[in-house]
Amino acid sequence: MRRLLLYLSLASLLAVMAILTAAAPPPAGMDLPSYTADGKLKRPAGFRNWVFAGASLGLSYAEVSNQAPPGRMHNVYLQPEAYQHYLKTGAFPEKTMFALVLYEPRQKESISKHGYFSGKLSAVEIAVKDSERFEEGWAYFDFGAETKEAAEPFPKDRCFACHHQNGQVDNVFVQFYPTLRDQRK
Amino acid sequence: MRRLLLYLSLASLLAVMAILTAAAPPPAGMDLPSYTADGKLKRPAGFRNWVFAGASLGLSYAEVSNQAPPGRMHNVYLQPEAYQHYLKTGAFPEKTMFALVLYEPRQKESISKHGYFSGKLSAVEIAVKDSERFEEGWAYFDFGAETKEAAEPFPKDRCFACHHQNGQVDNVFVQFYPTLRDQRK
Repeated sequence: MRRLLLYLSLASLLAVMAILTAAAPPPAGMDLPSYTADGKLKRPAGFRNWVFAGASLGLSYAEVSNQAPPGRMHNVYLQPEAYQHYLKTGAFPEKTMFALVLYEPRQKESISKHGYFSGKLSAVEIAVKDSERFEEGWAYFDFGAETKEAAEPFPKDRCFACHHQNGQVDNVFVQFYPTLRDQRK
Repeated sequence: MRRLLLYLSLASLLAVMAILTAAAPPPAGMDLPSYTADGKLKRPAGFRNWVFAGASLGLSYAEVSNQAPPGRMHNVYLQPEAYQHYLKTGAFPEKTMFALVLYEPRQKESISKHGYFSGKLSAVEIAVKDSERFEEGWAYFDFGAETKEAAEPFPKDRCFACHHQNGQVDNVFVQFYPTLRDQRK
């Protein structure tokens, strides 16, 4: 009897933990990830209208960067509804997408004498939180310079592993993006 | 009589030119500039939800930059409705606002080994197109690091002169911002 009670208590505890750690469902009105019949992610159309999370130039985690300095400009966006949910709760709901838009650097054009601005579009990459579909929760996709309409996820060891280990909040590099890092009151 | 006809023709031509060059009224639903009783611009609340125009790092037009390299990260936004109007027409409607958000650069934190990301908020500056209020059409305002609730316009020779002379489209540095420069079909 005592053992049965212990098992029941443990089961209840696990159920409560599962509820507490489950991600919130996607907020109403949010652009949702859409997939082809063979499981590729379709490139989201409207990411340039999403909330801007932050920019970086030449950010690289490799000991020896494979890019010539200064590297590429990174622009990161997420859906407005996912951003509002994050501001309120500190967590990203299911179906959150981040767009990472990469540009070649340019300098010393027009009246610019110092510094770097964004040149040619180099790549659009998308991170998706979709626990129904991806065992690890998040998956990562590369659409080239908007040249691919649909993309297969990267293998787990390409993006997921590092995001999972180093992203400050739920696989996301909140620490690098001021609109996420500094705007939660 | 011939002279009268000539004057009338000239007057008609000028009237038509005035209509053609007048800026469009602000699109419905757009965040509008708001002023204090003594003519200061109030800091717009929602600029982080506007469309992101582009980023640059350390961009400077001075022969000798007054910033230590790499300079500050610049993030530029405009109202979504002004952006849609620009995509369709190539022009900025009345009451267009641009937000220029400046961050101190940071590097070599967390797993970042190369490149720069955005650190502490350094300044929020706003450009406003409001021909009813400003003789030159555009005026420029500095709100510090969101420390000022309202600001007076900069003198004409501080921002306007250079924007007017070098901005690719209507005082705007479209040439530096890919979401403006490359997205018009």
